Amino acid sequence: MVIVVGLALVGLTARYVQARFLLGPAEPTHLAQKERYLASLPEVSPTAPSFVVIFFDDLGYGDLSSYGNRLIDTPAIDLAAEEGLRMTSFYSASSVCTPSRAALLTGRYPPRTLTDRHVYFPDDSLIGTGRRMLGWANELPRDEITLAEALGEAGYATAMVGKWHLGGRPGHHPVDFGFQSWFGVLYSNDMVPLDLYRGREVIHEDLRSPGLFGSGERDEARPLGPGGIDQRELTERYTDESIAFLEANRERPFFLYLAHTFPHVPHYASKGHAGESEGGVYGDVVEDLDRSTGAILAALDRLGLAETTAVFITSDNGADYNGSPGPLRGRKGEILEGGQRVPMIVRWPGRVAARSESHEPAMNTDLFPTLLSLAGLPLPTDREIDGRDLTALLEGRAGSPHEPLYFFPVLDSLPGAVRSGPFKYLRSTGDLGRDRSHLSRVDRDEEGHELSKLHPEEAVRLEAALEEMRSQVEANPRGWLP
Amino acid sequence: MVIVVGLALVGLTARYVQARFLLGPAEPTHLAQKERYLASLPEVSPTAPSFVVIFFDDLGYGDLSSYGNRLIDTPAIDLAAEEGLRMTSFYSASSVCTPSRAALLTGRYPPRTLTDRHVYFPDDSLIGTGRRMLGWANELPRDEITLAEALGEAGYATAMVGKWHLGGRPGHHPVDFGFQSWFGVLYSNDMVPLDLYRGREVIHEDLRSPGLFGSGERDEARPLGPGGIDQRELTERYTDESIAFLEANRERPFFLYLAHTFPHVPHYASKGHAGESEGGVYGDVVEDLDRSTGAILAALDRLGLAETTAVFITSDNGADYNGSPGPLRGRKGEILEGGQRVPMIVRWPGRVAARSESHEPAMNTDLFPTLLSLAGLPLPTDREIDGRDLTALLEGRAGSPHEPLYFFPVLDSLPGAVRSGPFKYLRSTGDLGRDRSHLSRVDRDEEGHELSKLHPEEAVRLEAALEEMRSQVEANPRGWLP
Repeated sequence: MVIVVGLALVGLTARYVQARFLLGPAEPTHLAQKERYLASLPEVSPTAPSFVVIFFDDLGYGDLSSYGNRLIDTPAIDLAAEEGLRMTSFYSASSVCTPSRAALLTGRYPPRTLTDRHVYFPDDSLIGTGRRMLGWANELPRDEITLAEALGEAGYATAMVGKWHLGGRPGHHPVDFGFQSWFGVLYSNDMVPLDLYRGREVIHEDLRSPGLFGSGERDEARPLGPGGIDQRELTERYTDESIAFLEANRERPFFLYLAHTFPHVPHYASKGHAGESEGGVYGDVVEDLDRSTGAILAALDRLGLAETTAVFITSDNGADYNGSPGPLRGRKGEILEGGQRVPMIVRWPGRVAARSESHEPAMNTDLFPTLLSLAGLPLPTDREIDGRDLTALLEGRAGSPHEPLYFFPVLDSLPGAVRSGPFKYLRSTGDLGRDRSHLSRVDRDEEGHELSKLHPEEAVRLEAALEEMRSQVEANPRGWLP
Repeated sequence: MVIVVGLALVGLTARYVQARFLLGPAEPTHLAQKERYLASLPEVSPTAPSFVVIFFDDLGYGDLSSYGNRLIDTPAIDLAAEEGLRMTSFYSASSVCTPSRAALLTGRYPPRTLTDRHVYFPDDSLIGTGRRMLGWANELPRDEITLAEALGEAGYATAMVGKWHLGGRPGHHPVDFGFQSWFGVLYSNDMVPLDLYRGREVIHEDLRSPGLFGSGERDEARPLGPGGIDQRELTERYTDESIAFLEANRERPFFLYLAHTFPHVPHYASKGHAGESEGGVYGDVVEDLDRSTGAILAALDRLGLAETTAVFITSDNGADYNGSPGPLRGRKGEILEGGQRVPMIVRWPGRVAARSESHEPAMNTDLFPTLLSLAGLPLPTDREIDGRDLTALLEGRAGSPHEPLYFFPVLDSLPGAVRSGPFKYLRSTGDLGRDRSHLSRVDRDEEGHELSKLHPEEAVRLEAALEEMRSQVEANPRGWLP
């Protein structure tokens, strides 16, 4: 007995040491193909459209007044919705941060990018090391192709402002994945350390130790860890950096990826506006984001860039235990609608009709092919791109390009749900209780009523599609094409 | 070690035998006071109003078309709402069956009636015995005073049709608590055995054994257990029994308590209407209940009883994992709004204005004092009655009589939340994540936004009220008055 336990401890320790100090990032297998693709890209025309993606962290489907919130006031975002397209069936590709961000930047479902095991953690923390001990990735593989790489290679000015959450090891930062500049943080604002970067340089070092789990205090009154960033200033600093980038690059096509730190916990309202929102501290934080969005849109207008710049405003996943999923079932971490359905507003005067609305299913995997298409660039052909080109949908000329859309549970490499038209089919997951599969129509009900007896043909069709996709992903998780 | 385990097993066995075969119902302490109260009641006038309470099982706040459902069609109930009052802040006194039923019949919060530990179970089952081993009640104490006892003693014809769920031991059936007749079942339709009673007689014996847990199969296609009731017929049989009672008692004041078995799981649509609802099998079951309600209201109209009969239509708790809580947070089993806020429609032509609507907080504890007040009967004075008389509210002459309302978690004897005006304060429970207390305003948000920093005075006031009520209940759980 003593011997068995002793041996197990020695084995575990060896594995810990190996994972902590020796195991590196996953070996890239398609680096050559990636390089060939990037080298093949044509130079874009100087009149190619520019792109701004504003990506909130944990903002729920019901957190904006234009999506039904009755406590939080978001006039700037609501105005953008008035001036453009408001989508009501837009999904993040995951119900948590890391896989959603990978999907947005690569156009691919979570297992393709090795982001199918929840979120990445600081490498020095026990969870970060534990992930490697389990053989899980803890950074985006080098052979993934990001929007920034493709657009940058073709001549775009590219910048990222805000939270990365796609790996912390050298060679896996935003500036290693095509962003010509980066101002922001590696991880969520409840993770430690929370260093502030400009490019490769730490300009504000967080002196706190990551501790066992790499997760710091939550929602405490104290906005500053010892040496930490003053989180009350983050939204404003991100905004200023973003506007400076727009001003500096007004003469050429650009891609700005502004990945806000908020409204992820802990919540810190900006200094000048705390206590203003009827939605409490959470409302203050969202209203800060609204002001930020308004300032960026105003800068585009002022710089004469409104009609040449497509602006996308969305969130990385549904509401966490704060905030509002609106009328949807479930929250962050679940493949139910409330975990993945998010606001999506597209403002692009002249191209996207004002006051338009779309109930067609789409997902943030679609940004990769859509932006490349709008820029006149081809897609990579060596790998599955799960997203679809939304250009025609944005312009009101077509419905959803998806048939169907898949949903991946946060700790599973295989999809657990599928949406097609108004129907969503959930494989037995326990989420809905009693661990049974479930067919619902999400256009008129939020996964409350089980309809497989009423629509048996839909249940059979969607179950078959889901099983087929599961087989495909199991056989070829990263989706390499011959 | 062996000795310790052996002794523990002997002790546990002894306790099991004691609980299973020797421990009876809780000793009634206020039986004499109850008898004095009932004996003191005056005979009511022959023109006193009659009452029909239609009580659904697990019907959620969003399950009726008049409460926003877009798949289920409930025209008869919707018409009743048109003809009377639709309440939007009406609560069941608990998020599960047993305490909610006790509260409706006695006007008292769960710990008063020893229903503060989830639901009662069949006495022969392991859970039923386990409850007694833990010292928990498994039937309504004999010294509780029910609506049926008070009204019946004063000359009302009283009848119960449907599910009891307040104890199965002899002396604790509906006919022992003032109902002159009873047609129905002791337990939920997923519990075994599910015998059908008429008065004291079992008219349809369920030959299944209760098994370890007293809980049978769920949602299976087979509507009949061996010897069990054909659940597809239950709603119709309850309806016929109810109408027969109305017809037989049209000449005198009556009280009909129709406690439906559905839409609790397992779901069985009636034979003639299966597959009709766009809401699937669940929708079929709710539409059966709507037809039943329509038939009862039509019978009242036909018998000329509409204007002398106050009809209350509500549910015992929020939606379970099926059905819809509407836009509310949480479901059955939680003290969140979705667990306890339920539809309440009051139809009483001439007394309650057509097309009226109330957003005032009220609870099913209020039926006891309201019905006694309308009947001109005094309340008991030896015990706390937590409900309040809603007469003025029903007639549109006053707001909520509550200041404030308390909510009891299903396994706790002390309240965990309190509502006052638009505000609800939840004590730290874990329900909302991260185990912190939470102030929200439930008129414009469904417990997503924590507002205690924005409204500190409300947070302090409600926390103090909650703590005060906790102390009171802890000192005197059953609420006996000197």
